[in-house]
Amino acid sequence: MSSSEVRASVLHGAKDLRVETRTLPAPSATEVQVAVQATGLCGSDLHYFSHYRNGDIIVREPMTLGHESAGVVTGVGSEVKHLQVGDRVALEVGLPCEDCALCKEGRYNICKGMRFRSSAKAFPHFQGTLQERINHPAKWVHKLPESVTLEQGALVEPLSVAMHARDRAQLKPGSTVLVLGAGAVGLLCAAACKASGAKAVVIADIQEDRVHFAVQNGFADVAIVVPMARLQTIEDKLAYAKELAGRVTASKVGAGEEEVGEVGVTFECTGVESCMQTAIYATQAGGKIMIIGMGTPIQTLPISAAALREVDLVGVFRYANNYPEVINMLSAKNATLQDVGKLVTQRFEGLDKIPEAFDMAGRVKDGNGNLVLKVVVAM
Amino acid sequence: MSSSEVRASVLHGAKDLRVETRTLPAPSATEVQVAVQATGLCGSDLHYFSHYRNGDIIVREPMTLGHESAGVVTGVGSEVKHLQVGDRVALEVGLPCEDCALCKEGRYNICKGMRFRSSAKAFPHFQGTLQERINHPAKWVHKLPESVTLEQGALVEPLSVAMHARDRAQLKPGSTVLVLGAGAVGLLCAAACKASGAKAVVIADIQEDRVHFAVQNGFADVAIVVPMARLQTIEDKLAYAKELAGRVTASKVGAGEEEVGEVGVTFECTGVESCMQTAIYATQAGGKIMIIGMGTPIQTLPISAAALREVDLVGVFRYANNYPEVINMLSAKNATLQDVGKLVTQRFEGLDKIPEAFDMAGRVKDGNGNLVLKVVVAM
Amino acid sequence: MSSSEVRASVLHGAKDLRVETRTLPAPSATEVQVAVQATGLCGSDLHYFSHYRNGDIIVREPMTLGHESAGVVTGVGSEVKHLQVGDRVALEVGLPCEDCALCKEGRYNICKGMRFRSSAKAFPHFQGTLQERINHPAKWVHKLPESVTLEQGALVEPLSVAMHARDRAQLKPGSTVLVLGAGAVGLLCAAACKASGAKAVVIADIQEDRVHFAVQNGFADVAIVVPMARLQTIEDKLAYAKELAGRVTASKVGAGEEEVGEVGVTFECTGVESCMQTAIYATQAGGKIMIIGMGTPIQTLPISAAALREVDLVGVFRYANNYPEVINMLSAKNATLQDVGKLVTQRFEGLDKIPEAFDMAGRVKDGNGNLVLKVVVAM
Amino acid sequence: MSSSEVRASVLHGAKDLRVETRTLPAPSATEVQVAVQATGLCGSDLHYFSHYRNGDIIVREPMTLGHESAGVVTGVGSEVKHLQVGDRVALEVGLPCEDCALCKEGRYNICKGMRFRSSAKAFPHFQGTLQERINHPAKWVHKLPESVTLEQGALVEPLSVAMHARDRAQLKPGSTVLVLGAGAVGLLCAAACKASGAKAVVIADIQEDRVHFAVQNGFADVAIVVPMARLQTIEDKLAYAKELAGRVTASKVGAGEEEVGEVGVTFECTGVESCMQTAIYATQAGGKIMIIGMGTPIQTLPISAAALREVDLVGVFRYANNYPEVINMLSAKNATLQDVGKLVTQRFEGLDKIPEAFDMAGRVKDGNGNLVLKVVVAM
Repeated sequence: MSSSEVRASVLHGAKDLRVETRTLPAPSATEVQVAVQATGLCGSDLHYFSHYRNGDIIVREPMTLGHESAGVVTGVGSEVKHLQVGDRVALEVGLPCEDCALCKEGRYNICKGMRFRSSAKAFPHFQGTLQERINHPAKWVHKLPESVTLEQGALVEPLSVAMHARDRAQLKPGSTVLVLGAGAVGLLCAAACKASGAKAVVIADIQEDRVHFAVQNGFADVAIVVPMARLQTIEDKLAYAKELAGRVTASKVGAGEEEVGEVGVTFECTGVESCMQTAIYATQAGGKIMIIGMGTPIQTLPISAAALREVDLVGVFRYANNYPEVINMLSAKNATLQDVGKLVTQRFEGLDKIPEAFDMAGRVKDGNGNLVLKVVVAM
Repeated sequence: MSSSEVRASVLHGAKDLRVETRTLPAPSATEVQVAVQATGLCGSDLHYFSHYRNGDIIVREPMTLGHESAGVVTGVGSEVKHLQVGDRVALEVGLPCEDCALCKEGRYNICKGMRFRSSAKAFPHFQGTLQERINHPAKWVHKLPESVTLEQGALVEPLSVAMHARDRAQLKPGSTVLVLGAGAVGLLCAAACKASGAKAVVIADIQEDRVHFAVQNGFADVAIVVPMARLQTIEDKLAYAKELAGRVTASKVGAGEEEVGEVGVTFECTGVESCMQTAIYATQAGGKIMIIGMGTPIQTLPISAAALREVDLVGVFRYANNYPEVINMLSAKNATLQDVGKLVTQRFEGLDKIPEAFDMAGRVKDGNGNLVLKVVVAM
Repeated sequence: MSSSEVRASVLHGAKDLRVETRTLPAPSATEVQVAVQATGLCGSDLHYFSHYRNGDIIVREPMTLGHESAGVVTGVGSEVKHLQVGDRVALEVGLPCEDCALCKEGRYNICKGMRFRSSAKAFPHFQGTLQERINHPAKWVHKLPESVTLEQGALVEPLSVAMHARDRAQLKPGSTVLVLGAGAVGLLCAAACKASGAKAVVIADIQEDRVHFAVQNGFADVAIVVPMARLQTIEDKLAYAKELAGRVTASKVGAGEEEVGEVGVTFECTGVESCMQTAIYATQAGGKIMIIGMGTPIQTLPISAAALREVDLVGVFRYANNYPEVINMLSAKNATLQDVGKLVTQRFEGLDKIPEAFDMAGRVKDGNGNLVLKVVVAM
Repeated sequence: MSSSEVRASVLHGAKDLRVETRTLPAPSATEVQVAVQATGLCGSDLHYFSHYRNGDIIVREPMTLGHESAGVVTGVGSEVKHLQVGDRVALEVGLPCEDCALCKEGRYNICKGMRFRSSAKAFPHFQGTLQERINHPAKWVHKLPESVTLEQGALVEPLSVAMHARDRAQLKPGSTVLVLGAGAVGLLCAAACKASGAKAVVIADIQEDRVHFAVQNGFADVAIVVPMARLQTIEDKLAYAKELAGRVTASKVGAGEEEVGEVGVTFECTGVESCMQTAIYATQAGGKIMIIGMGTPIQTLPISAAALREVDLVGVFRYANNYPEVINMLSAKNATLQDVGKLVTQRFEGLDKIPEAFDMAGRVKDGNGNLVLKVVVAM
């Protein structure tokens, strides 16, 4: 296999996406070459697209976006054994150092040397997946069984975040779960919990449409719409958080109108301070709060209210070793997971449509009045 | 509340069940009185009925059988707060000592001082639930929500065994599971795994009807019929076990005919030596074998084949703290668990029909050609 | 055994301790009567003594203080089997409800119905141990082996807090540990980690004497004296916390002057906001922060700096099932634990000396220039 | 750095060790070159030396033995950052595939593709460490701090087995531990448990000298000498095992002659069937048996006696991620671990003395009447 030319979508500045041609070498002995065919757009991609930065991280050279991708193998390095040309695959795009203690222990997601496609944290930037073909180490390329579509394959990445959160939560079957935030990650956390035997999943968001979508499509059991509140003092904020927490545990589920009861695990997917405060009050003694949403980095929290009841605040950063289990669960046609495809609400085809796709990803609803949850670019 | 008379089914010898009248005192301050309304017959009950003994354990005084029961509260002790007359409840019939280190740590199932209804291990025997009403400590009586029927309530006990096995297995979602034995416990283990996100559940038994029942009713994904084999030497036995193990991992699942792949956890529900041997060969490196079936107490096993691959042999005895989660899962109408009711294949009504019920429980099929899996006595 | 009179130390208001005579009934069938002989004074006792309240909790009726106690059995209820008159025992003074899910699971320390001697949280208050004799449920009374002294027996309570923290930390042998706060609990956490195979224990406090005491007496390996800082803005506070964290990880240990390296687990024993901020920066990716100190209930924290590196904030409230292991470790003459007795820096004898003992417990040093770490009342 | 010549000890047949000269290339970019200076001889080495095979594994080409080694770095590949020439290092000589799910999860010890120096399992054989210098991937080479000697460095390998066993045992501090077999691995398991806060370590062996060595040198607290027994029937064997188990739990420890009490974890380091039977009877309900010794691959076991009490049989194969913690514990001068050097009972210097060293390793005592526990070859 020799080098070839590929077209790539490249970000040169805020909202300045250009289609360019790059030379792609043949895959090395341990790599495969993959034609990217479905890519979900993520919040971090959208930040880079809109501002040429993501929080503190500034883009320092033209960068291709995209990291939630599936595709088809088009070339195979000489030492690669588990893949062949034509295989449909999901791409795990973070490459850990593989040398440090965390990598050796299997917690490679928090490796300091991690290089992650479409993140500007490391320099030179590791280019994203919104290009026709890429070479990628075969060990991070996961074969999809026949029963899993490429679009589902693109959802394996965000589902892995949800499953990693679920794993760290050590969720017990029969537990009541609270999900704060009904965006893509919140919905997938809800689905992961439903698929793992949760008794009831309560989902809360300030957008009424989203929580209703969640319940109507089987992602959650109970919807709570949270009113916007502009509160000044910490006392008022905490009183408000307690009230919200009370609404959660008093909510009812099912035809029998049974109380959902105390919350065993809360998945905080917003990064908003008032949500974390609510999480602390809503979670039962001995429970866990999973910190998934990235938002306000410094928060004022009623930390004693957590500690004295042994409610643990547990960080969740990306995922480790979750792709195989997610693919297996999708292939199992698990009752809940088989519906996660409903998360894909808009589709765009071709590199040239990517700016349009990002424009859509930044909206709450599309022109037809449909919610915008996950926008997928097909190629 | 004053004392009253109740009719009870009492075993006086092998197959000698008599209906007798007993005086039941009022419940103590911490007890409730429960009218037993649905009771599943268990293998241990059947052994006592047939032989007036269960393995080494010999009945030493007339004993009422039955321990898988649900009913309705008819009286409440003065200190009981969480229950009231009319509540529908599932009975957890083992009373641990509550003093020893294991009890305090929450592993009360293996408390040495455990008293368990319808078991002749302790003397005087703790009388079983096949009587009109019993007094029972309120802390071991679990309220059923409206959405759970009394017959499902009677299944909470064996389901708790399955969930306890699942918990000790630390089953990872997306795993392939092997269940050896398609009797009631095996089927419930299979259901527990399906409800917890297993990729594929393979079930094996020597009775073809049973494994087909399992797959047709959603308890498992793949059926394996095991031929009876009379082998003499340990070499032949192990070769046979290896061959069976190979059949398991080579089996295929779903429309896509995907291989089930390596087995993460095996639930051994037969107590048969050749099954344990098969379990060791079938389970992947780093996996677990859950020892649930009670059978041959002394077995010759290829123990190095387990140890060198860190396949752990994990005992499972009854359950601890599982009733609430099982009831929650049933109330959640979890996709798989809502079908566990199919396990009840025959029903008998009234104390007088109990000998007939036991007779049925000892058969493989009933007169209509239906499998006999779980016989329930309604009262 | 009939009822008898006992003298008790009773708090009637701030600094108003009176010795009174009470009538003590014979122990019930499941109780033992214990002559209290050694009691350590705890920070919460001191708060009640000084202010007739402890934070938000106000004393509502005269209350006896004391909950870190050992003594000798003087009477035994009829059903008690594991204790007899003359046995030397440590008292576990919290009585959980034993009915709720948390109690049944073995996490009784966070039971909502817990009644705890010398705490004014529940009403009527459960009287403390600073009295001649008390009746106590035998199941919460732990026999001391000959090799453990009564004064060590009084340390079992605070050591149990430390061991419970160590257990929840899942401390890996060979880890570097940071302890913030060199008071009694901090020193015992340090000792618990040393006794569990920590590589190096770094201890930090604003009081130079205390950290030097810790290192000189084998509780810790490295001492860090933290300067007091009065900072206004959150930016300045976090910058200061980062600097402190840098001092910790750059510190050296042993003759070889090896760097202590990254901190696996931080035990936060001060309850001070700046310490929690430091803990977040000092703890390595994948590590844990144990929240033990009770102090500022609402804190402003760099929560993303924890979550993005999966540094978990883990609450620690009292202890559960730790008395037996602590007593075993003391009896084992474990290299580090055998020196925990050095924590007892002042002793007072007799009920009449208790006000004097509390006065001492409120000081930093005694009249001889010795540190005040743990004051014990002997009776 | 260019290629060079090294002298190596090479096994050509049973007891046929020859010193040969090999050409060693320069280390690759990710390798270091290490001058091997201390190597402990292991039981598997001794089997290869004596029989040119190890159980079922037959040597198929001349092979250098040795895998418990420390040395000094003499060359460094261009991409290696954490090591430099002159560094003293311990060698982790197993190279896992780094591609499979087990490797990614951190359980690389049970990777199917593992290549391990001085094991003839894979072909071509991966040559052992009994040569002057070797090239080895830098990621598996661990720097020793100044305070750890090279001879201690050679013990890091067997200590890692012990620590891995301890980790899998989830040993609770304060537990009573039973170690079956007082050879090198048994003694190190005992030391690992003492260093982790065990209450009492009971060690049993058929050789009186060994168990006394263990107690006299602080590896264990209680010595049990097991008489040889030639029993025929399984009934006699199990009765004997029960009797031995009774001797263990009835044994006493310390000046106070306290009973050691029930065994929480048993480390089975002999591979002998009767020891495994004893382990099952001696371990308390809810405890664990760690299977470490390699011996009789097929054993007849009272498996119900384990399962019904939830005594788990847990395999232990080599180690994963233990080198850093072991080196840290050695550097910490942990009370017990600092004495593990006493395990080295005989030393030989130079490649030419290796046959003599193996001859010694095969004996029970040396010419001076000293026990032979661990023979080290210095170079």
